[in-house]
Amino acid sequence: MDARDQKTLKKISDLAMQTLAAVRAGKNPSLSIPVRALSNVTFDESQRLIRLGEAKQSRAFFHYKQAKLYMQTFLIAERCKRLIETGVTTSIRDIYYDAKHSVAGTRENTFEDQSESDPIIEDLEVTIDALREELHLRADNRGALVGPMTIVDTGDTIDLRRMGSGGWSVPSIVEDNRIRLRKHEAEFVLYVEKNAVWSRLNEDKFWQKHRCMLIHGGGMAARGLRRLLRRLNEELSLPVYVVVDNDPWGFYIYSVIKQGSINLAYESMRMAVPKARFLGISSFDAVRYKLGDRVSMALKDEDRTRADQLLKYDWFQDKRWQREILEMKRSEKKYEIEALSSRGIRFISEEYIPHKIQTKDWLD
Amino acid sequence: MDARDQKTLKKISDLAMQTLAAVRAGKNPSLSIPVRALSNVTFDESQRLIRLGEAKQSRAFFHYKQAKLYMQTFLIAERCKRLIETGVTTSIRDIYYDAKHSVAGTRENTFEDQSESDPIIEDLEVTIDALREELHLRADNRGALVGPMTIVDTGDTIDLRRMGSGGWSVPSIVEDNRIRLRKHEAEFVLYVEKNAVWSRLNEDKFWQKHRCMLIHGGGMAARGLRRLLRRLNEELSLPVYVVVDNDPWGFYIYSVIKQGSINLAYESMRMAVPKARFLGISSFDAVRYKLGDRVSMALKDEDRTRADQLLKYDWFQDKRWQREILEMKRSEKKYEIEALSSRGIRFISEEYIPHKIQTKDWLD
Repeated sequence: MDARDQKTLKKISDLAMQTLAAVRAGKNPSLSIPVRALSNVTFDESQRLIRLGEAKQSRAFFHYKQAKLYMQTFLIAERCKRLIETGVTTSIRDIYYDAKHSVAGTRENTFEDQSESDPIIEDLEVTIDALREELHLRADNRGALVGPMTIVDTGDTIDLRRMGSGGWSVPSIVEDNRIRLRKHEAEFVLYVEKNAVWSRLNEDKFWQKHRCMLIHGGGMAARGLRRLLRRLNEELSLPVYVVVDNDPWGFYIYSVIKQGSINLAYESMRMAVPKARFLGISSFDAVRYKLGDRVSMALKDEDRTRADQLLKYDWFQDKRWQREILEMKRSEKKYEIEALSSRGIRFISEEYIPHKIQTKDWLD
Repeated sequence: MDARDQKTLKKISDLAMQTLAAVRAGKNPSLSIPVRALSNVTFDESQRLIRLGEAKQSRAFFHYKQAKLYMQTFLIAERCKRLIETGVTTSIRDIYYDAKHSVAGTRENTFEDQSESDPIIEDLEVTIDALREELHLRADNRGALVGPMTIVDTGDTIDLRRMGSGGWSVPSIVEDNRIRLRKHEAEFVLYVEKNAVWSRLNEDKFWQKHRCMLIHGGGMAARGLRRLLRRLNEELSLPVYVVVDNDPWGFYIYSVIKQGSINLAYESMRMAVPKARFLGISSFDAVRYKLGDRVSMALKDEDRTRADQLLKYDWFQDKRWQREILEMKRSEKKYEIEALSSRGIRFISEEYIPHKIQTKDWLD
């Protein structure tokens, strides 16, 4: 077991020891859990990320509403402890099934549904300040990666320069005790929302010509991907550029990569990439890059509503972002990344992205 | 350009030459396109796959309803020809944007929507008898692979034994002119529907212990995955085992892998794996493997309706399959693969799958 696992293990043990101490002292054992709600979320302007505030709630053992939650918290903690001790990882769905049983002597189940165990996992994360990945819990794998870098993944040395047309599938847990970043010649990271666009760039060997790590997420960036982007930015000082559809959903994907999400604000400290840059598709690109009206799509009601929400977020208050979103509303149009193909199938890899980076035409 | 590309190119040229010949002869040019509809789909009992029948429809140039479709067919064909000639692949969404323009001298667009170009691609596939992949058109990448095999992907030699926790991301086009299967020690292929389950099996090095190619699809198997399963089965004679959720949707995923789908019946000849075996989760496993009631889920109305549909499909008429589906209906229960974790997180890799294969407890 490495230092990182030992540290997480100690946090779990300490939690148990607190309870034990309370029991021995004849007190009602209770946990102090940071509140995971909008009321306790703030946008940190200087660090440029969404943070969880200081508010805490108490969860007591002798309390008719909290007793079950208390028991559930320790059921999950106990399982995570065992996962770490045995060097095993598992999914949050598996842990639900694993921890689900009937309480001895009753007809009561420990958990009725995964919707009961998931929040308990999040409670545990914030309470002991450990990412879910440090608790050995996996989310879905999603996305793939190629680029001029060698990594070591759980003992296997992998040359990301020789991954063919498929790429290396990014796992859910990319912490540095599992994935080591080794020799590389990368100068930046390019994250594209869509895997079809990634395939275009990979086939054109964009990453070789421009020396970049080329990553796609298949829509909203999964946790493993976000954490990897963060590590590439933080540990190797590589700039991160993001290319998403020109619609409110694309802007939102970018914003989650950059400053985190409201729901999982407590993770931003270690998953957000505050320096990430939005490369496109910008609402002004239609004119600048002569995309033409025929490849635009009309905004729908839901787009307008979502755009109005984005306009109000603290992290979109920058003048340039306001201008960007208002232009989308004004034009009543949105564009997929693939709309660039109206200028030719290789336009994105040969002109659009290189030109954007060269002229520093990005938002941050 | 390799022999395969040349062959596809010739098919496209021949189509154009036919039209040219008709024009020169002063005739109305027309295409003869196999009908892609349920009425023209049959289940071939002996080969055990869904096949497209012999019915054809004519598409004429001088015809007020067909003229546009005729033009669209050649627009797409011309673009595919260019893709093949230049050794480029692209997505069906990109080709839509690439081919979309206004017809000179009119206000008419070549395509209004991707829902117009997608069926034209399918028409072209059946008309010239070439898979979409042979036309250099990509679907989404999905799924990942590890196992005791070396492959060459577009020039890169990849050792699938050393892919760490992530795996090799399976590309959309896995034809033998792009992906070559080289040295291997695999004895079978294990396809699991869910990527969390795949991660469990990969972490437990199931593929090493049991010498198998371990593949997941993230739900419904993508085209590239199905084609790869077919190649592993056909070229290397590896048995293919499928593990899906115990619900009508899981059974359906299996059936598409095995005999193809109604919608894309013309692909079955080269994408179906008629010898694929359903390993689980069977409706009888709950009792056999003591899963316990608390990890079951109640069938919903949509499950019952879907189960009734499955019962009527030609390819589920086998007595054992009827028994399987009826048991699900009788018990009123369904189980996710992860329900096996109620017997311990490693139960699936250490007991369930090895026992199933050893005792030949599968359906085919």
